[in-house]
Amino acid sequence: MSASVLMTTPSAAQIQQPTPVIQSSAETDPVAMGWMRGAPPPPDKVVKFEDGSFSRFPQSRWSFAHYRELFPTARVSRGTGTVAPLPYALRMDLDNVTFRVSGLSSTMTWRQAFDAVYGDAVIVLHHGCTVYERYHGATNADTPHIMFSVSKSFSGTLAEMLIANGQLDENAQIMRYIPELASTGFGDATLRQMLDMTTALDYSEDYSDPKAQVVAYAYAAGAAPRPPGYAGPRNVFEFLKTVAKSGEHGSKFAYRTVNTEVLGTLLSRIADKQLPDLLSQAIWSKLGAEHDADFVVDSNGAAVAGGGLNMTLRDAARFGEMMRLNGRFNGQQIIPAQAIASIRRGASQEDFAKAGYTALPNWSYRSQWWLSHNAHGAFTARGIYGQAIYIDPKAEMVIVRFASNPKAANANFDSISLPAYQAIAEQLMKPAVRD
Amino acid sequence: MSASVLMTTPSAAQIQQPTPVIQSSAETDPVAMGWMRGAPPPPDKVVKFEDGSFSRFPQSRWSFAHYRELFPTARVSRGTGTVAPLPYALRMDLDNVTFRVSGLSSTMTWRQAFDAVYGDAVIVLHHGCTVYERYHGATNADTPHIMFSVSKSFSGTLAEMLIANGQLDENAQIMRYIPELASTGFGDATLRQMLDMTTALDYSEDYSDPKAQVVAYAYAAGAAPRPPGYAGPRNVFEFLKTVAKSGEHGSKFAYRTVNTEVLGTLLSRIADKQLPDLLSQAIWSKLGAEHDADFVVDSNGAAVAGGGLNMTLRDAARFGEMMRLNGRFNGQQIIPAQAIASIRRGASQEDFAKAGYTALPNWSYRSQWWLSHNAHGAFTARGIYGQAIYIDPKAEMVIVRFASNPKAANANFDSISLPAYQAIAEQLMKPAVRD
Repeated sequence: MSASVLMTTPSAAQIQQPTPVIQSSAETDPVAMGWMRGAPPPPDKVVKFEDGSFSRFPQSRWSFAHYRELFPTARVSRGTGTVAPLPYALRMDLDNVTFRVSGLSSTMTWRQAFDAVYGDAVIVLHHGCTVYERYHGATNADTPHIMFSVSKSFSGTLAEMLIANGQLDENAQIMRYIPELASTGFGDATLRQMLDMTTALDYSEDYSDPKAQVVAYAYAAGAAPRPPGYAGPRNVFEFLKTVAKSGEHGSKFAYRTVNTEVLGTLLSRIADKQLPDLLSQAIWSKLGAEHDADFVVDSNGAAVAGGGLNMTLRDAARFGEMMRLNGRFNGQQIIPAQAIASIRRGASQEDFAKAGYTALPNWSYRSQWWLSHNAHGAFTARGIYGQAIYIDPKAEMVIVRFASNPKAANANFDSISLPAYQAIAEQLMKPAVRD
Repeated sequence: MSASVLMTTPSAAQIQQPTPVIQSSAETDPVAMGWMRGAPPPPDKVVKFEDGSFSRFPQSRWSFAHYRELFPTARVSRGTGTVAPLPYALRMDLDNVTFRVSGLSSTMTWRQAFDAVYGDAVIVLHHGCTVYERYHGATNADTPHIMFSVSKSFSGTLAEMLIANGQLDENAQIMRYIPELASTGFGDATLRQMLDMTTALDYSEDYSDPKAQVVAYAYAAGAAPRPPGYAGPRNVFEFLKTVAKSGEHGSKFAYRTVNTEVLGTLLSRIADKQLPDLLSQAIWSKLGAEHDADFVVDSNGAAVAGGGLNMTLRDAARFGEMMRLNGRFNGQQIIPAQAIASIRRGASQEDFAKAGYTALPNWSYRSQWWLSHNAHGAFTARGIYGQAIYIDPKAEMVIVRFASNPKAANANFDSISLPAYQAIAEQLMKPAVRD
């Protein structure tokens, strides 16, 4: 877990590794461990960017809730409106909901699952009411938490808005919008291929390989401390210009964060404003968010679209609820319904299967969202180390989970997360039993 | 204007320098100049930390309103309460209030003064109502602006609160609170000497001298890009341990930002929380602030108490109004009246005079505030490049001004600022004339 902590997701092939002995969630409570406590904190309790400690477990359990103290960030303003209520109708009995871990005979409760995945916070909305809410360790109700690749789904949603409004053409090639990238691997990809990550790039997201392009990307973004004498790209856009094509676009799903960086640039250019300002204007200021969101920026001032967004749990839930309600929330149609419909349509399951996500059978990826194509029509935004906004339309349920798992890839614990979400959905769909 | 842009104030002796031709405020409008516009911005329009462009005029006119995009910052939470109203009773006729520039025969209007000092924003409260409000360039009503040394007055006020509450002893030596600094220049200084900046330190705040300690301080704080091969202190506290004594404490005023850094450490240690959290808990969350404030932090996560605070104009005005009302604001006694009384008592004018601030005759400095001892009892928080919270109790007036002057020292334009504030005060004190 080194250079690329900010925004990478390893391929499914990378997740089969010998498991070292890892301390439990209780043993790594970041408050109990005393990270950054004291003035100054004792040297062995300091978590910082420059030595990479921020990205190491268990320090990550502190840093994921303190990204703006580690990186320059731009504000995604909540505007000045009132806060959209999420009325409480708590059902903490959900703690006892039991499910079977995929591939195992063992069962687990919802409460146990929270610790098993190193949860930092989780909220469940049902019919727009908060039926479950829990915070742990360094994360409180007013703490923005790093969302990693959940960030991508915000840019994907903005793109669908601009497509619905006719400001973007999903069939146009990237070079039409960003001529400087014409000769790169992105140039002749269509916006749709980029949104759905079916671009064919000479780019490895294998961050266990120090020569992988994702490491260079992390250095360029300022997401990892640069080695002495570093002479590579000093911002994300400079890096994007180095990415070459490999193969034919549009033939298979290949999850590469750089696609979203191109998308962020494109959105910002079309809107003629920085991405955080666009996000604020188009969505965040209309959601009735409780808090500003924080967007990590690179040394060019560009938001790190692939993984740099931080927000509070409830605000992420408001966004999820808006997605569930086809764009309508807080008394207004924030996102055109056709934009949400486009996302929920999903993409080719066949193309998706080629990427080898065995924990996600029959899924697809469209417009920076993950589509389950299950009986509930569930779809989700996912970020490494366990971040998720999970929307179950049939159960009228939204779950947001923040976590600081020692392992990056969600595939390591999808066997817990996904059946847990499904079990909660089924529980909520049962007729209420009253004494 | 190099290494030390974050928090230094040059001595009065430094301000007599040949004046290069400098573009006017209108010519350097940061929006018109297009800083950071575009995705990515053209290279000559990028303002960044790593090349020091953020601290150069006229780029500074953009960066002063975007510090959190340039530095890691900690949040000073506004909490969750309602916003304290600042009712409008606008008198934009104040634009025409005319005053004589100190030392010159020429006169100037309030409106002209705003441009003359390269104002970014200014608000005037009278009886707690907003009688004047103006924003310029990159600064809007919801934009936190860097306050530079105005930040110090927040720590000074917190210290007076803890003294009033009996948690701190102003006569105790610093080594009692921070034993690690016992053998430094700070060790045998009293808290009172530190608060009033009468410590005697081997420390030069002359930032035109590259060997001055203030340059080393800026590198340690991460407030200036470190030179290649830098091997000095990597956080503020490490730097504080290198500061030696020179002379006897308590004999004269000598403005040195490092005093406030010691104070910030001390406050954080006594409160057992980080300074931004203390500030939020004790003051900011009670003010009815509209926005969170942003506090620049060093690589140890410590708030840069000497100059790292950013806030919106109206929120700074709320703080000023609370000071004017002796600690009572937003329906509660936020700060004990005796703490404010201690500040307003001022310190030795004789000790102050020794520092040679010719633009501030008969002034004194107490608890990180500047006391005019004029007929109105005015006192002020001041930051380089023109930041001010100016409180005139007799006129029942508070002025907050943000600026991005090409010159750092307020002494360069006190001849405009101070008579302008006084003229507005006198105008407001006149009986209202109605048509």
